[in-house]
Amino acid sequence: MPRIAAVHRIPMRHPGDVSGLAALLDAGTLRAEEIVAILGKTEGNGCVNDFTRAYAVQALSVMLAGRLAATPEAVAARVAMVMSGGTEGGLSPHFLVFAVADTPAPATGALAIGAAFTRDFAPEEIGRAAHVEATAEAVRTAIAQAVLDDVHYVQVKCPLLTSERIAAAEARGATVATHDTYASMGLSRGASALGVALALGEIASIPDAAIGQDTTLFSGVASCSAGVELTRNEIVVLGNSRAWSGNLTIAHAVMQDAIDLPAIHAALRGAGLDPAGGQLPPAEAARLVALLAKAEPSSTGRIRGQRHIMNDDSDINATRHARALVGGVAAAATGRTDLFISGGAEHQGPDGGGPVAVIARRTA
Amino acid sequence: MPRIAAVHRIPMRHPGDVSGLAALLDAGTLRAEEIVAILGKTEGNGCVNDFTRAYAVQALSVMLAGRLAATPEAVAARVAMVMSGGTEGGLSPHFLVFAVADTPAPATGALAIGAAFTRDFAPEEIGRAAHVEATAEAVRTAIAQAVLDDVHYVQVKCPLLTSERIAAAEARGATVATHDTYASMGLSRGASALGVALALGEIASIPDAAIGQDTTLFSGVASCSAGVELTRNEIVVLGNSRAWSGNLTIAHAVMQDAIDLPAIHAALRGAGLDPAGGQLPPAEAARLVALLAKAEPSSTGRIRGQRHIMNDDSDINATRHARALVGGVAAAATGRTDLFISGGAEHQGPDGGGPVAVIARRTA
Amino acid sequence: MPRIAAVHRIPMRHPGDVSGLAALLDAGTLRAEEIVAILGKTEGNGCVNDFTRAYAVQALSVMLAGRLAATPEAVAARVAMVMSGGTEGGLSPHFLVFAVADTPAPATGALAIGAAFTRDFAPEEIGRAAHVEATAEAVRTAIAQAVLDDVHYVQVKCPLLTSERIAAAEARGATVATHDTYASMGLSRGASALGVALALGEIASIPDAAIGQDTTLFSGVASCSAGVELTRNEIVVLGNSRAWSGNLTIAHAVMQDAIDLPAIHAALRGAGLDPAGGQLPPAEAARLVALLAKAEPSSTGRIRGQRHIMNDDSDINATRHARALVGGVAAAATGRTDLFISGGAEHQGPDGGGPVAVIARRTA
Amino acid sequence: MPRIAAVHRIPMRHPGDVSGLAALLDAGTLRAEEIVAILGKTEGNGCVNDFTRAYAVQALSVMLAGRLAATPEAVAARVAMVMSGGTEGGLSPHFLVFAVADTPAPATGALAIGAAFTRDFAPEEIGRAAHVEATAEAVRTAIAQAVLDDVHYVQVKCPLLTSERIAAAEARGATVATHDTYASMGLSRGASALGVALALGEIASIPDAAIGQDTTLFSGVASCSAGVELTRNEIVVLGNSRAWSGNLTIAHAVMQDAIDLPAIHAALRGAGLDPAGGQLPPAEAARLVALLAKAEPSSTGRIRGQRHIMNDDSDINATRHARALVGGVAAAATGRTDLFISGGAEHQGPDGGGPVAVIARRTA
Repeated sequence: MPRIAAVHRIPMRHPGDVSGLAALLDAGTLRAEEIVAILGKTEGNGCVNDFTRAYAVQALSVMLAGRLAATPEAVAARVAMVMSGGTEGGLSPHFLVFAVADTPAPATGALAIGAAFTRDFAPEEIGRAAHVEATAEAVRTAIAQAVLDDVHYVQVKCPLLTSERIAAAEARGATVATHDTYASMGLSRGASALGVALALGEIASIPDAAIGQDTTLFSGVASCSAGVELTRNEIVVLGNSRAWSGNLTIAHAVMQDAIDLPAIHAALRGAGLDPAGGQLPPAEAARLVALLAKAEPSSTGRIRGQRHIMNDDSDINATRHARALVGGVAAAATGRTDLFISGGAEHQGPDGGGPVAVIARRTA
Repeated sequence: MPRIAAVHRIPMRHPGDVSGLAALLDAGTLRAEEIVAILGKTEGNGCVNDFTRAYAVQALSVMLAGRLAATPEAVAARVAMVMSGGTEGGLSPHFLVFAVADTPAPATGALAIGAAFTRDFAPEEIGRAAHVEATAEAVRTAIAQAVLDDVHYVQVKCPLLTSERIAAAEARGATVATHDTYASMGLSRGASALGVALALGEIASIPDAAIGQDTTLFSGVASCSAGVELTRNEIVVLGNSRAWSGNLTIAHAVMQDAIDLPAIHAALRGAGLDPAGGQLPPAEAARLVALLAKAEPSSTGRIRGQRHIMNDDSDINATRHARALVGGVAAAATGRTDLFISGGAEHQGPDGGGPVAVIARRTA
Repeated sequence: MPRIAAVHRIPMRHPGDVSGLAALLDAGTLRAEEIVAILGKTEGNGCVNDFTRAYAVQALSVMLAGRLAATPEAVAARVAMVMSGGTEGGLSPHFLVFAVADTPAPATGALAIGAAFTRDFAPEEIGRAAHVEATAEAVRTAIAQAVLDDVHYVQVKCPLLTSERIAAAEARGATVATHDTYASMGLSRGASALGVALALGEIASIPDAAIGQDTTLFSGVASCSAGVELTRNEIVVLGNSRAWSGNLTIAHAVMQDAIDLPAIHAALRGAGLDPAGGQLPPAEAARLVALLAKAEPSSTGRIRGQRHIMNDDSDINATRHARALVGGVAAAATGRTDLFISGGAEHQGPDGGGPVAVIARRTA
Repeated sequence: MPRIAAVHRIPMRHPGDVSGLAALLDAGTLRAEEIVAILGKTEGNGCVNDFTRAYAVQALSVMLAGRLAATPEAVAARVAMVMSGGTEGGLSPHFLVFAVADTPAPATGALAIGAAFTRDFAPEEIGRAAHVEATAEAVRTAIAQAVLDDVHYVQVKCPLLTSERIAAAEARGATVATHDTYASMGLSRGASALGVALALGEIASIPDAAIGQDTTLFSGVASCSAGVELTRNEIVVLGNSRAWSGNLTIAHAVMQDAIDLPAIHAALRGAGLDPAGGQLPPAEAARLVALLAKAEPSSTGRIRGQRHIMNDDSDINATRHARALVGGVAAAATGRTDLFISGGAEHQGPDGGGPVAVIARRTA
């Protein structure tokens, strides 16, 4: 029987607000058992001390535990929940709930979702070639599981180094990629993104030394976030498959810099939306189900030759500036602000740019 | 003899960096005596404790004093210097230097600049109907002085109430519009904007009670900023005039909300620039001399129905979010980041939106 | 049978960390049924968008629900949970868990805890004289319930106005104290503090117009925080009672300004701790169970004649500066940083100062 | 003829406010020619984009240029001007103006000031052993020049690496200590502090590898700040000398952590001030001319075993928290808030602590 993917975009009134999802479940629009992933854009700072992410995960887990007759921990193990902090500028806090069900409808080709996990990583593997290779293998597994014809977005949740993990590795005589736990987040995201790139043939092979260093190596579809709560990579792959049914489709493009409106237009057009005069007219905007993009300040300190101040601002973190900026560019293209713009884009698109994916309904 | 206006856009490496303007003066590209106004976008927070504005004015005044054989104070009295703090997102710090000279060339019609001042205001007049009316009169004077055929941008620098000024008024038995000195900035900007609207026939008359309250009353061309250093309004009016010569032209439109890309497109087209596919191609972007827009979070807490978090963020001031957002939308349209986006938009465009003006070169 | 109060100070590793309390329950050191109140110092910004408070309450409620075989909502109704955001400077995130039990030990006199609630308030009562009077009545009830001989700290959790509540009142033809929902928090805290002052005879009667205005009226023991989740006042009173048993005692003093070290010393000495040379020596610091103080920037912009910049800083909220400052002064006195310093001190101590209470163990 | 040192503490209303110093010069209280150093505490963020420091230096230079009939550049070369950004918590913006004059009074022993410069450093020397050794030599020169009997405070202004300087060194085949220009500031401050320690015999010799790494090596009197505008170290040494005259004296102590009130008391007592009950009484506080201390968050994330959140806060820079905290502790001790608390304490006191120096008048 063909599968069908559903994507529900649900506004949040605050990071602990799960009432919108509860209402969908109550109404029978969605069954809890069908949920495979939840991506959330919460209104914290998106940096080290952003607790809105864990708060949202806790609220979702407690609510879904009641629906699934499971413990909150079991829910978290079953549903991939990736919270991206930071709704700077005009961005609007919301959840994207991904669900998969079997359907008696014919397989006409549609958005398809695959998921897979790597093995647990030893601390000394994180942010290194072993991390890249295991990620690539899991991405291939997820693609096969979903029978994808093409791949447009790969969400990776990956681990980081903690003081305890570093100590455990060193007690065994192993060395780790970095002693700076914050830096380990970037290395883990970078290795994960390169794993995606390797699986998709975007790059050939990756020496350890390139991870976190060579910004010319990147994936055009990876979106990675690091979390302390796991020791493996959790992977959700989105693409189109002739073996699936439904009214949704996905496309993507790569922004070459933070103000690359034409790339966003290309992704919109790829998903069948027409931003004719520059911004989607309301009827087209209503068919836009999700826009997912990465934002990062260019390391050169410049955008098309003009200086930006993101990297020198000690009051507002650079990634916050970048999300506000890319959010503005994407809102200009779409006429919407409930967009999934996330930061931390090591090896995810070129320096200062990043991937942008669009999920759309084919018809109103 | 016809007049000709010049506009020089000069990047700043830091708020005290006047080397770019000094180089133009050294090269003879510009004569110090011709400078009538300098608008600067500095990289402070744009709020109460933004000292980058005063620092830039001091640096400009000291440098120009040497060129004009005048004291820094005399320079500040002669040249209208308006610094707008805040280059959030991708915005790039820069000066816009406006100069006027006589020219032997024929009056073919071009960008024209007028300036005027009101009388000094008594503290009890600030933010009230008398403030509105005197502003309107000065705007009419400036329009006449420049022989404008149309008006596309009116920059107003206006006073605010201080504890001393309030005390002086009350010692005379007068009452002031507010005892809150920070709130007086908004009332002064609002009264100034309504004065512009009155002069241009955008509104008919303004009761005291409407100032700062009735957001349906606004000017589509006013851009106002309040400063403690003056007690009158200083006004610079930009428009087109058949009596002037030169290669520059100006147009404007009104953004209905913060993501109104079509309005920016309209302003660009009005000035002869074609954002065909959505973003100005490089050759057209090179002809864009200045884009000046106002940014404000909507007071409703929503943009096209979706919640924004600008008004509830105690870490980043709401106007900083708004500038980053509108800067992103304008960069999407223009492919440039050296744009003059300023905050504090009381009665300057509709709630959550604002005026956008474009100055362009007619030919490369 | 006499009652005995226990106070457990439990460090938090993050706002959702309830492992410390769970461990105490697991060890049998504390029984969940005995918990009457939890005061938490969480590491958010302590301002509008501080979600660490709700996150901590949710985490506590879910954990305690399991221990009490109750719903999380029932736990929240039974245990007064007051989270104060903001651990600026050196302050350390922690919970203070207050428990009450019967004891066969003789009533030798000790720390005693009382609790009471007001009726639900109509929106038009919030921040007004009716609010003050009902609070005073509940404070008297709580004092009687705990048989207090003296009162040293009164924690009040109070409601605020929301747009919905204002609309409901106005639909009935009633008027509310303010249309600004943020301002309603200050009025509610202020009315609550004045209610405490009225109950304790610190003031005589309060005209509506004095609430939020007349800073010379205040309580020297009130600590109030406003929350959207309730429509009544919840009151916890701490004092000493000859009818109670135990090894704890409480005292308080009133800081006249933010750097009033002698007042903190007075409170320490009142509770039997000797800061002889200025700072409690380690053995005395170990007997300090809790220090609870209010912090606010002086509205004059000065401390002992010198300018402070708290009220003019648009990057860091004034209350964040104030907590860091008072936290430093209190840490100087105590040699500890796990102190309960909270902001928002309307009518809670004099302008720029505030109450400080100390709970200590009588012997090591 | 003996020399006499004067120290003027002058409040600032904003970073460009030099009116207080101008008034002293106008009144003849101070002669511009006698000024040897100005230390300023300005109200910026004290981090990368703090332009209040350069603004204050520009304002001082322009004003003093008029008094000294010199260019602003010549003034900056003659007077050591060190601005420390950040007046968090209750700290009050102010200048400390140090002046030296000959006096016919007998040499009774008093505060003495010495100054010296190193040679210009090659980029490859910055932050390395050569930097340490040259600093030590200059400190010895300054001590000899002032005929100091003891040393209590050494202010060092030191250079940093820029991209240009790095490129110049590498073009010659030299290697630099770091390619990270921000990190070079810490290395330069650290090497400078170790140079002070070497000169004073606090340490024996410093291997390159210890700079910026071994926090057990430090000076108890050094206070270092890095600036882009110089390529040498500028050194001001404060101590007492029997060869000088006057009513001022200086002492110091080393805070072992950020809440080390006893160390501040020791420094106060060393300078003849008695904080008997914990805080200087008003008459003693009036004799306190300056308190200069370093503030840094402990790298362990703890203060006396309790967690602090300074290093994990992405909204407020860690050094801002630390200044607020140490400012609170020092205000507790002194009853004053016009204190010179600065951040960036590499090798300046132990990890999480720092030197504290006190200048006092011997009699009222």
